[in-house]
Amino acid sequence: MKKILMFALGALLLSPAVADLFSEQDLNTARELRERALARDGGFDVVADLTTRIGPRMAGTEADARAVAWAESLLNETGFDRVWLQPVTFPTWHRKLERAVVTAPVEFDMVTLALGFSPATPQGGIEAEVVMFDTLADLEAADRSQVEGRIVFIRNRMEAARDGSGYGPAVQARSIGARVAAQKGGSALMIRSIGTSRNRFAHTGTQRFDADTRALPAVAISNPDADRLERLIDMGEPVRALVEVDAEFVEAYTSHNVIAEITGAKYPEQIVALGAHLDSWDVGTGALDDGAGIAIITEAGRLILDLDRRPDRSIHIIYFAAEEIGLWGGRVWAEENADNFHNIQVGAESDFGAGPIYEIAARVSDEAWPVIEAIQNELAPLGIALGGRRAMGGPDFIPSAPFGMAAVDLRQDGTTYFDYHHTENDTLDKIDPEELAQNAAAYAVFAWLAAQSPVSFGSGERLLADEAARNSE
Amino acid sequence: MKKILMFALGALLLSPAVADLFSEQDLNTARELRERALARDGGFDVVADLTTRIGPRMAGTEADARAVAWAESLLNETGFDRVWLQPVTFPTWHRKLERAVVTAPVEFDMVTLALGFSPATPQGGIEAEVVMFDTLADLEAADRSQVEGRIVFIRNRMEAARDGSGYGPAVQARSIGARVAAQKGGSALMIRSIGTSRNRFAHTGTQRFDADTRALPAVAISNPDADRLERLIDMGEPVRALVEVDAEFVEAYTSHNVIAEITGAKYPEQIVALGAHLDSWDVGTGALDDGAGIAIITEAGRLILDLDRRPDRSIHIIYFAAEEIGLWGGRVWAEENADNFHNIQVGAESDFGAGPIYEIAARVSDEAWPVIEAIQNELAPLGIALGGRRAMGGPDFIPSAPFGMAAVDLRQDGTTYFDYHHTENDTLDKIDPEELAQNAAAYAVFAWLAAQSPVSFGSGERLLADEAARNSE
Repeated sequence: MKKILMFALGALLLSPAVADLFSEQDLNTARELRERALARDGGFDVVADLTTRIGPRMAGTEADARAVAWAESLLNETGFDRVWLQPVTFPTWHRKLERAVVTAPVEFDMVTLALGFSPATPQGGIEAEVVMFDTLADLEAADRSQVEGRIVFIRNRMEAARDGSGYGPAVQARSIGARVAAQKGGSALMIRSIGTSRNRFAHTGTQRFDADTRALPAVAISNPDADRLERLIDMGEPVRALVEVDAEFVEAYTSHNVIAEITGAKYPEQIVALGAHLDSWDVGTGALDDGAGIAIITEAGRLILDLDRRPDRSIHIIYFAAEEIGLWGGRVWAEENADNFHNIQVGAESDFGAGPIYEIAARVSDEAWPVIEAIQNELAPLGIALGGRRAMGGPDFIPSAPFGMAAVDLRQDGTTYFDYHHTENDTLDKIDPEELAQNAAAYAVFAWLAAQSPVSFGSGERLLADEAARNSE
Repeated sequence: MKKILMFALGALLLSPAVADLFSEQDLNTARELRERALARDGGFDVVADLTTRIGPRMAGTEADARAVAWAESLLNETGFDRVWLQPVTFPTWHRKLERAVVTAPVEFDMVTLALGFSPATPQGGIEAEVVMFDTLADLEAADRSQVEGRIVFIRNRMEAARDGSGYGPAVQARSIGARVAAQKGGSALMIRSIGTSRNRFAHTGTQRFDADTRALPAVAISNPDADRLERLIDMGEPVRALVEVDAEFVEAYTSHNVIAEITGAKYPEQIVALGAHLDSWDVGTGALDDGAGIAIITEAGRLILDLDRRPDRSIHIIYFAAEEIGLWGGRVWAEENADNFHNIQVGAESDFGAGPIYEIAARVSDEAWPVIEAIQNELAPLGIALGGRRAMGGPDFIPSAPFGMAAVDLRQDGTTYFDYHHTENDTLDKIDPEELAQNAAAYAVFAWLAAQSPVSFGSGERLLADEAARNSE
């Protein structure tokens, strides 16, 4: 925590104009929340219990239902003012089997995972020559004759970065690789795992949400296996492989968003929405993705519940359903609030592991921006700087963006996040309780002050108008 | 390599008495070997080829035979003066299936590997309550009533250390845990993986070489799975698990030590023996254990072969067979040399990964110790300090110790070695070619000077007599 305390000095330089936005009492409460949060473990007990008792909880599985029951029970026992379920119906997919084997010129098994929504191969798999491309763009540029009848291997490697910016470019091979390979007559897609681990784990994840993309069996192989395959191909002899996938599609499963409320004392209809997603991939125990987020927002809620007063606005703790396979919980939440966004003060989701938060960015109206600056002043002792005015609020709030929802990003250091994300290795030991506490402190302070803000953050027409005006300047 | 060059100053302080042990020409050759080695990649091509083309090569498998053919071909093509095979016959064991599942109060699969020589369970496995012990000693102290009919779980955790000293104490649970559990009526043994990785890999390895130890089905679970099991047990409800193993015993398989010789110009019958083992466990590709050793000693041999002169004594590059499952290649080599140890100048095996060497220790006669000091002077620019007078030469030379064989340990930094050792994650990407080159430089310098030594290192009666005299002082 030393590093965090070094920033405390900065907070003392708070300008009077900014400070005046909040009452002294509200600021004192924010500081009390921050200090109490840092003295605790950030909700580590919550993610420990979730990953121990429930473990992986892929949307649409029996464990999904157990997780929802666990969540409802936890939130009720915690003493929120109100807890309810919001039904979410979605198509899903269950992995049964996957194999990727090099069959010539030597034979070896590779560590592999089918990509989400991969169709099954014929039983026994598809065996063909492998054609390797450096990137998706190279596959896109290739002649059909290079691809037809072959297993396409895309070897591009994701780069680690604090803000996770290596993911976007690299993940394209996963998102639409199968569609492109199918268009050129390829027989299966095999990609280097999207992730930064050098350990022998494959990385799963969805493909883009259209049926075309799901036309071809698609698997990811672990980085060390991709290295070996590359070396073998570089030796010059033709390399053949076998890909086998078996999987089951489920067209309509109903799970639930689980929502808990701290009812606002003055404006109960106005909502500060803190989100995380309850579902996980079916490998690992979903500790970083997104058990950590569940812990952080729950702990923030508990800290505020423990105060001897209620916030002015309501605070919602939302465990979203089925994020991993298509943001389904976020879509339902946005639709349910379609006529209510003027009452959504702000949305912020924690879904980037358990690394410390280094920056707050916000999409709010011009009028509300000084409030964000004032909030950042209270976050500065946690080592959190002021970011810019672009924010999405997290994946489950993407479907709310077209409604002009105000959004805050509490940006976490994700340098090692993609070492574990979507792999069998996403387990509790990867979470540092001290870093988790920093996150919970930030969410508690942010949620409290957003609820006490003298102004609306401008969700809806005002925000959209402000942005249009800024863009036309 | 900057760190290494900083040590060069130390070498300039070389005392004249020590320097005089070798001719100026021999010292110049040693320095030339060192510099040429550092300009190359330590034999990375060798371990890359071995791990790419052959991969895992468990003693007694089809891949073992392919590895022997690969080795014979490589050593012949390299231009050694003589290459031959030494038959090694041993009992072995092949893994077919292993499962470890917690069945109550919640159900989850754990990442697991059967321990070497585990017997099979009945089909469908053994399901029983789990009893947890902190250490093997606690199991040894337990009443039969605590253990009988239960699955024994030992949770002790290995500590990382530069010299690998955490392995010895921790591995006891693997070596004899099944025997102790069987004596108390336990139904299966489950241990926390012996290894320092927090990643989700199980760690296999042999149990002690007696039939009693192999009486009970025995598996290791990955560290994150062991953590989860511990947490579940600590929650207080009875925990039940299922352990299933299927495996095949093979009583007599014959593989081969593969030996290459650089024939000595003056004393061809006298041998500097450099060893590594060719076999690996059946998981991973045996890159660190012990493809790295194969690369290092092969590169050392190549560097010496490239000189325009032959060493005085012969140098043998020995790829030992079946080390992992009982030092079988080392046993045969010792027996074959039973009447010849007076001609074995020294033995040194590289079998601790690819970390840099930090120290030379030697078990040599009193007369030869100044030669070791002189050799260390030439190793100092590589960052290698002088260690003590206890050395074993590496696992495959343990069977030669009773014959009084002189042995040298070129001790490697093994801080991260047990993150990968005996797991699926022992792959080529874990090897740093620059560190490999430092190793090859050290082996080349050491082997060259040992071959040019003005005195015998004292293998046999003299060494045993010297040690007896020192011990009685």
